Amino acid sequence: MEKIAIIDLGSNTTRLIVMAYERGSCFRLIDEVSEAVRLAEGVGPNRELQPEPIRRAVNALSMFNRFCKSTAVNHVVAVGTSAIREAANQEEFWRALRAETDLDLRIITTQEEGYYGFLGTANALGLRHGVTFDTGGGSTQVVAVQDGRPTESFSVQAGVLRFTERYVNSDPISKRDLRELRAAAQQAFSGLAWLKADTGQRLAGMGGTVRTLARIDQKARNYPLDRVHAYTLTRAAIAAISEQLIQKNRREREQIPGLKRDRADVTLAGAVIIEALMDQGGFSELTVSGQGLREGLFYAHFLAPNDPPILEDPRSFSILNLARLSHFQEAHCHKVAELSLSLFDQLIPLHGYGAWERDLLAQAAMIHDIGVAVGYYDHHKHGEYLVHNSLLLGFSHRESIMLSALVRNHRKGFTDATPYAAILKPEDSTRIARLSALLRIAEYLERGKSQVVQAVRVELGPPIRILVQATGDAQLEVWDAARRSNLFRKAYNQELEILLAPSPR
Amino acid sequence: MEKIAIIDLGSNTTRLIVMAYERGSCFRLIDEVSEAVRLAEGVGPNRELQPEPIRRAVNALSMFNRFCKSTAVNHVVAVGTSAIREAANQEEFWRALRAETDLDLRIITTQEEGYYGFLGTANALGLRHGVTFDTGGGSTQVVAVQDGRPTESFSVQAGVLRFTERYVNSDPISKRDLRELRAAAQQAFSGLAWLKADTGQRLAGMGGTVRTLARIDQKARNYPLDRVHAYTLTRAAIAAISEQLIQKNRREREQIPGLKRDRADVTLAGAVIIEALMDQGGFSELTVSGQGLREGLFYAHFLAPNDPPILEDPRSFSILNLARLSHFQEAHCHKVAELSLSLFDQLIPLHGYGAWERDLLAQAAMIHDIGVAVGYYDHHKHGEYLVHNSLLLGFSHRESIMLSALVRNHRKGFTDATPYAAILKPEDSTRIARLSALLRIAEYLERGKSQVVQAVRVELGPPIRILVQATGDAQLEVWDAARRSNLFRKAYNQELEILLAPSPR
Repeated sequence: MEKIAIIDLGSNTTRLIVMAYERGSCFRLIDEVSEAVRLAEGVGPNRELQPEPIRRAVNALSMFNRFCKSTAVNHVVAVGTSAIREAANQEEFWRALRAETDLDLRIITTQEEGYYGFLGTANALGLRHGVTFDTGGGSTQVVAVQDGRPTESFSVQAGVLRFTERYVNSDPISKRDLRELRAAAQQAFSGLAWLKADTGQRLAGMGGTVRTLARIDQKARNYPLDRVHAYTLTRAAIAAISEQLIQKNRREREQIPGLKRDRADVTLAGAVIIEALMDQGGFSELTVSGQGLREGLFYAHFLAPNDPPILEDPRSFSILNLARLSHFQEAHCHKVAELSLSLFDQLIPLHGYGAWERDLLAQAAMIHDIGVAVGYYDHHKHGEYLVHNSLLLGFSHRESIMLSALVRNHRKGFTDATPYAAILKPEDSTRIARLSALLRIAEYLERGKSQVVQAVRVELGPPIRILVQATGDAQLEVWDAARRSNLFRKAYNQELEILLAPSPR
Repeated sequence: MEKIAIIDLGSNTTRLIVMAYERGSCFRLIDEVSEAVRLAEGVGPNRELQPEPIRRAVNALSMFNRFCKSTAVNHVVAVGTSAIREAANQEEFWRALRAETDLDLRIITTQEEGYYGFLGTANALGLRHGVTFDTGGGSTQVVAVQDGRPTESFSVQAGVLRFTERYVNSDPISKRDLRELRAAAQQAFSGLAWLKADTGQRLAGMGGTVRTLARIDQKARNYPLDRVHAYTLTRAAIAAISEQLIQKNRREREQIPGLKRDRADVTLAGAVIIEALMDQGGFSELTVSGQGLREGLFYAHFLAPNDPPILEDPRSFSILNLARLSHFQEAHCHKVAELSLSLFDQLIPLHGYGAWERDLLAQAAMIHDIGVAVGYYDHHKHGEYLVHNSLLLGFSHRESIMLSALVRNHRKGFTDATPYAAILKPEDSTRIARLSALLRIAEYLERGKSQVVQAVRVELGPPIRILVQATGDAQLEVWDAARRSNLFRKAYNQELEILLAPSPR
């Protein structure tokens, strides 16, 4: 695999990520280093970067550059955003940088910043219609998306560090400071007529503030999944968090579960900015994207020459990504998917499920064995663990919980994902059981991994009969699938027979 | 990676395992299929295999052969043991097999069976001196080991299936049946003068019976680790299990936690055989090996042309195996190990630890990042999960718990492995904290993964001072290591300063 490093010098944080990848096929984040450099610290109305922040930034970039060289990274993409873009004394920064390192840093325009953020988020969430935004330290980028393409772009100097320095001069914040902060935030988006929560338009947010708000909300709700990517954050939840941040002083804020120390000062300004943005567009909720600018820069490289470099089907891609990284047995997984779906289709009169469940079943079939990469024994449990901890693109939390349950249930035992009940719907327990039962039968019809079973024909009973057509000897497959059909009996409350179909020859 | 399949036709079970490997470098079990064929079922004093068991065995072998072909296995090694070795009507079996499949099955001698079992166990447990035994369905193999080489070998037709059929004709077992069973077991090993629990001689057992006994004992003790490999099973624990099995009938036995249904009938005979063997040698405990004949056949291929094909240092090998399978960053891990050990050595006056702790620290350093293969975020937690679920050779359970805790603690937070307290010693909590603290400092001195830190010199304080010698700019490394030294302060109850040493140039 090749390695690419993306370096992003922001107003607040400077970050390095390293992706290992095979172009267009699969990728994995293998390193991340994050520095709270606060390059924009102390930048006043004269827009001068201060010597100490410059020194910190140069140190961090110099280390990142060494890092890339010593870990044999093949490509380095380094960009700077608003802090450096808007500095009146850019020359000073460049001089300091050049004295320390030969890193090839490029300042990107606000347009580019919005575009790459859009790329990251659109791929991460499978967003085709809607609005993405990125609230950083120095500015907020907003991009409208139609049919998977960016149609409008807007950048405004409403950043959490900038607004905090300018408006938050009291602790807890005074009424006057708060009034000015809110007015400035409202002002920032007031001209955006295209920012509208029309039908089918989702709002997707990225950046540290959004992730922090999500984490605080999850802690407050005792949310059972430890992941902010793809989390739905409501306008009401943000309001509740703002209210807390307004009333508390710094020491009290640091006690808020989910709020990291280095975010304790700047999160109120961030929340107020995001509230203003949502109110301007009339959005009642947003989806958190775990990916943004840096990942967007990665996708531009990874998916080139696609224009825009957008995954056609992020869900299927991320499942295949996971499968490929785990060296899956392709023919076997495809056959298990094929047999599962054939059973699914023929049993529609019994379960009544549609395209959504069918897709989940197909996706689960492709990754049902990935746990083997951890260890063969209990690989269904390892698979569940991996799905819980993997990057899934375009899946909601509910969907990813169901996927992990299906993978877990493809052999042995049964779980209906009870610990995650708060994320599921009450009927999902049955749904998981019914889909798992089909996956398990398909898996055992492929136990020899030799694609000996050609097709299955279902006779709706009672009892239900699955007639197995095989290209060779499939006695053991049929016998074993029959032996594992208890889950089916329970899930469908019907007797089941699995039989070899008379050979057509 | 290449793939090799090992097929083992036993008296009770027929099994296929598939290993993916790079010769001499790394390997991983990627498939296993197990069939309760019971080939020896109904074999009476005339030693005739019965038609139905022959049919079952041929079916299974035929499926295994198809399996190997369709999954593109590069090498197939298939062996048969006592059931087929001793059959009076071997020809019948061969005829049936040839009619169905072209699998190249080889009958191995009792000598070979003992040897390969020894190979599996000696590598799995790092056993250099002692005795290995394998109690199967038809026979038990016993091998004495000196300096890592087999010195004596013994095989006797004391197998769990054979003894059950011959002696257990009542349910629960009658006093008379039990007396005869015990007499036969005692008789089986009575001539073995070299079977002796001398100083430094460990007893290591393999096979389904030993694993079953371990599982029952673990359930009874509420043992916190779900792994039988490397578990210590005492003679007293086996006696307690025998006693239960003697008193219960089949239905009651099936309720015993840890006892699988298909082992409910044969485990008593197995326990009695193992008790007799232990008593003959005066062993008060045995170590369970999760590897045996099949893995021995694998090692013979994997380690060829070594004679015997024994890993010189199974512990280090299995750690490297894990690291290589996870594509570890070699230079980085070696540097973290080097710095950790340098800190360890210079701090001996404070911690007083010796070679054992030093080795654990070095091993943990090599695998501290393996969790990245699951996902970068929380990779310390994923690493802990992987260590818990990986094949470790030659490590005790206590050692593997400590390893996983060190990996977990190499960054962020702290766990002293409390859930596994029953396996640890009371002072291990401190031990874990002290070793983890060194690993963490070393890790942050290598945060740029560029081996910029050359050496560390420790001045014992108070306060303790770590002087960092670097080949380049290591300001960030020193700053970050200092920032993460809280764990050190708590673990050693001493103040710590980490400083850049004045450059020697």
